[in-house]
Amino acid sequence: MMRFNAHYAELKESYLFRRIAEKTDAFRAQNPGARLLRLGIGDVSLPLCPAVIEALHAAADDQSKKETFRGYMPECGAPFLRRAIRDHYAARGIALGEDEVFVSSGASDELGDILDLFDRSCAALVIEPAYPAYVDANIMAGRTILRLSANEENGFLPAPPKDGNCAADLVYLCSPNNPTGAVFSKSQLKEWVDWANERGAVILFDAAYEAFITDPALPHSIFEIEGARTCSVEICSLSKTAGFTGTRLGYTVILKALERGGMNLNAMWVRNRTTKTNGVSYIIQKAGAAVFTPAGQRQIEDNLSVYRHNAQILTAVLDELGVCYYGGKNAPYVWMKCPRGMGSWEFFDKLLKEAQIIATPGAGFGESGEGFIRFSMFGSPDDTREAAQRLRGMV
Amino acid sequence: MMRFNAHYAELKESYLFRRIAEKTDAFRAQNPGARLLRLGIGDVSLPLCPAVIEALHAAADDQSKKETFRGYMPECGAPFLRRAIRDHYAARGIALGEDEVFVSSGASDELGDILDLFDRSCAALVIEPAYPAYVDANIMAGRTILRLSANEENGFLPAPPKDGNCAADLVYLCSPNNPTGAVFSKSQLKEWVDWANERGAVILFDAAYEAFITDPALPHSIFEIEGARTCSVEICSLSKTAGFTGTRLGYTVILKALERGGMNLNAMWVRNRTTKTNGVSYIIQKAGAAVFTPAGQRQIEDNLSVYRHNAQILTAVLDELGVCYYGGKNAPYVWMKCPRGMGSWEFFDKLLKEAQIIATPGAGFGESGEGFIRFSMFGSPDDTREAAQRLRGMV
Repeated sequence: MMRFNAHYAELKESYLFRRIAEKTDAFRAQNPGARLLRLGIGDVSLPLCPAVIEALHAAADDQSKKETFRGYMPECGAPFLRRAIRDHYAARGIALGEDEVFVSSGASDELGDILDLFDRSCAALVIEPAYPAYVDANIMAGRTILRLSANEENGFLPAPPKDGNCAADLVYLCSPNNPTGAVFSKSQLKEWVDWANERGAVILFDAAYEAFITDPALPHSIFEIEGARTCSVEICSLSKTAGFTGTRLGYTVILKALERGGMNLNAMWVRNRTTKTNGVSYIIQKAGAAVFTPAGQRQIEDNLSVYRHNAQILTAVLDELGVCYYGGKNAPYVWMKCPRGMGSWEFFDKLLKEAQIIATPGAGFGESGEGFIRFSMFGSPDDTREAAQRLRGMV
Repeated sequence: MMRFNAHYAELKESYLFRRIAEKTDAFRAQNPGARLLRLGIGDVSLPLCPAVIEALHAAADDQSKKETFRGYMPECGAPFLRRAIRDHYAARGIALGEDEVFVSSGASDELGDILDLFDRSCAALVIEPAYPAYVDANIMAGRTILRLSANEENGFLPAPPKDGNCAADLVYLCSPNNPTGAVFSKSQLKEWVDWANERGAVILFDAAYEAFITDPALPHSIFEIEGARTCSVEICSLSKTAGFTGTRLGYTVILKALERGGMNLNAMWVRNRTTKTNGVSYIIQKAGAAVFTPAGQRQIEDNLSVYRHNAQILTAVLDELGVCYYGGKNAPYVWMKCPRGMGSWEFFDKLLKEAQIIATPGAGFGESGEGFIRFSMFGSPDDTREAAQRLRGMV
């Protein structure tokens, strides 16, 4: 008998950002003149850099002429882009094969698709607060979700469970973290890698925010850690690195050394891609390759430094006010403790009403996020400065 | 315990087009001077039309300026494109809500992703010969595959199984068909729709080739059929319609009337997309919208008529030779019976060796395709004419 996937009924009703949008729309309808400051959803505000724009135009021209027209792309990524990404890793001292790099339409797409490679009996361990899709995508597949709390006690960077009976098979690690801005050190990541190798677990390492790391001691990639090659998949994105949130491009590293029970994850992903996609747009892949040129790398740094400066503007005021917060260094998020024991949504409503600031309630990232609010540093410097001023008046 | 998805081990070793590429590469290595005529994989050869190129450039410019820059797109599709597609259907007399149209990265991507909505206990009925991914994507999910043979006896357009015990829940219908070029009439589709409604099955209607229909009596969309609204999902693509094989864009229609067991497929797909994607590239969606403008529609017709003319060139020679074939009308594929009872791969090898023509062995689309070979009409007129000449000498 035809049955739809009943696990969808187990999902919580509404998606975090949808609820924020509804509350914001309602406020705006009642206060049409208000200047809203959007420090909520982590969307970027600066345009694509000139090297990328140039590549987009050139690729569009390629598609206009018979001689240069490109049809179906290789499903796992265009060789020119896979090579550029491999070289990018090599420059950081990480040796990869070109065929260990896969081009994707972005980290969020990939985080959903890649779960197909794992048995549904695998339990997923999510460190909360977390990007809500980690949990939801596994609920859709009927997996058991295990939760580990990131909190003030562990500096939002919990160590692996000591419990020998912990059933975790798949582990999500996001560093720099969304939403807390916490960043794992090499020795902390090493604990996770050793733990995963001991029990045969696989780490899904979400490196979407690695470009915000400025401290040379902090790892950008899990493959900087010894032992990671046999237990990790790294999922990256150009969304925050190069402003590709609306352009869509990411990449994933799956090494050939990652095997379990005689099955090879790299080979399985090749099979998945050749069955379930026809590759990523040629035009977008050319734009992505431009990010990895010397000019592209210089230009994206200009944008990144604007966002980093936003963090400095906000954290300077929070420091001055003596407000408790985390993140804001090596990460594009500031994770603020709500004042006077307020709940996340309560403080969200207060910020919206009294300061017309839109932030993201920590509780939307799981129970462990309750009592915190996330500020994104991807807005304009003007808005961020104005938000900091308004906070001064109300906190 | 961590287990990779063991169903991947049940897949057949090699993907059809990979094997063709290997054989072609081997031939070319031994015969470096040969002029190969590619009538194999269904990739297009003509560039994108001017309206699309113009839209690509304009959208790239939008992404270069702060004022017009676009970040995250709505996950289910940009309103401007959903509206354009809704209007396209309305012009054909099919009323859809804008929120019943979903933008995708292409039909192959969507055919893989959408299976997440159905329980794994559902059995999938595939009419073979078929696009290999129909079968493989369901094997990956551990579903039972039921097969129905399309053959000369039923004109490659089989009626629904008469067997009251047939366990089929999900049914793939591809019309115009890949690989046979057969096209369902309205009355034939009505039989399938009635059959699906009676048993609660869902039809996945692959309309990727609908733009090749010129006969006004033949249906472009399953929603031209009474009763389809409660049992069908329609998956479309701009790949063949507008040459987007390497640009990537498609759309899917899921009506709100499609419910089973109290669950609504449209709402589920919204939930899937908002969890597992961040939408399709703004630039590519702008390019897609240009296809639906009056200029875009005129320009894609110019390209389509080149491909239709290729079919006329080839079928004229096949008619003259008295060769048995199907398709080539209202469809971009000619489905030829291999001469003298030869097998598909045997005839593939012969065509490659004796005429340097690359075609696609019917057996690659399932057992029912054995003894046939597929010619694609997406090549250049010169190559198609030359191929027809060479066939004259050898068949």
